[in-house]
Amino acid sequence: MHDIAVDTDILASNEAMALHNREHFREHGVYVCNLMSAPGAGKTTLLERTLAQLAPRFRIGVIEGDVQGREDAERIAKLGVPVVQINTGGACHLDARLIHHHLDSFVLDDLDALVIENVGNLVCPAEFDLGEQDKIMLLSVAEGDDKPKKYPVMFHVARVLLLNKMDLLPHVTFDVARAERDARALNLDLEIFRLSARTGEGLDAWCAWLADRIERVRT
Amino acid sequence: MHDIAVDTDILASNEAMALHNREHFREHGVYVCNLMSAPGAGKTTLLERTLAQLAPRFRIGVIEGDVQGREDAERIAKLGVPVVQINTGGACHLDARLIHHHLDSFVLDDLDALVIENVGNLVCPAEFDLGEQDKIMLLSVAEGDDKPKKYPVMFHVARVLLLNKMDLLPHVTFDVARAERDARALNLDLEIFRLSARTGEGLDAWCAWLADRIERVRT
Repeated sequence: MHDIAVDTDILASNEAMALHNREHFREHGVYVCNLMSAPGAGKTTLLERTLAQLAPRFRIGVIEGDVQGREDAERIAKLGVPVVQINTGGACHLDARLIHHHLDSFVLDDLDALVIENVGNLVCPAEFDLGEQDKIMLLSVAEGDDKPKKYPVMFHVARVLLLNKMDLLPHVTFDVARAERDARALNLDLEIFRLSARTGEGLDAWCAWLADRIERVRT
Repeated sequence: MHDIAVDTDILASNEAMALHNREHFREHGVYVCNLMSAPGAGKTTLLERTLAQLAPRFRIGVIEGDVQGREDAERIAKLGVPVVQINTGGACHLDARLIHHHLDSFVLDDLDALVIENVGNLVCPAEFDLGEQDKIMLLSVAEGDDKPKKYPVMFHVARVLLLNKMDLLPHVTFDVARAERDARALNLDLEIFRLSARTGEGLDAWCAWLADRIERVRT
């Protein structure tokens, strides 16, 4: 088991750096969101679809977090959007220091928004504030409706829950009402959108919500 | 980012405890496997199906690892199998000390096998040896065929890859040949079974493999 004292130190030092990042983003009028989910819930596909809708209206940058590899960054780069790949080299989450270290890769005054795609993991990323305005989480219906009960911290800290892969609903056992009820029990203000990044179903409502958030921060 | 020195200490102390567990299991002739996957890949459903086939032949115990909750343990207990729930209370993986601490809950001489269902996570559990003989990993085809490239450590350490939810293959974009090729590039000895824990397809070959492993260790 982890030594509690050590964990506390790591988290406290992350909080200080996240605060610094947050001030930096505000100063430059950049909206930042942190996209989190289990591996394979569809973060990159969602991001591709979202950028296709919003990149014509807003100047959006992307940070791709992965343990290893740069496949996701290459997918995003094809859309003509500035993108930076961070490889954690083993660590299961991004932290505020890693984000800070890579902010030099962007000219923040030239951005309206920065989307950070975190490492695929439903546990640790929830505990590491990056300085973002919103934490957005994806849950694929293929993962099962028991996830709010099993990973409560992630559902508690998220501003938005995107129920993804709704096109698979006829082929899996997933009680949408149960998942939404259990998620809202952890988080009264949770915004929920049902969608399929693959088919495009339900994407407009999510993109409209995100556009509104970007507008609010833009200077 | 984690302090490297601290991580090394944690891993070294885990290795020592895993060695101790492993000797303990061998002494009692108990086969132990560590079941790992992303959240929602189907570990518990696979375990239910596997126990239905093998529990009549072997005396099998189960340790359920979760961040929180005891739903999985309750599902397993319904099968009349001895089961212990470990809640990590935030930690994203089981470690050897946690397993050691809970071994008293079983009479090891009365068991042929112990299955440990790890916390749903494709990163950290791969680094924490529990003292098991085999690491078994599940990958759901709904998660995408890019996972071996993105989570190489897990594929490298696994003895078996179970490609689960094969019944969803017609409804998702997943190149089975690519996933298997990339997984084998990380691990020449990887045993791969294609199956669906939900429909039962492909389950017999996996259960036969597992039964053989249990036989080899049984005293």
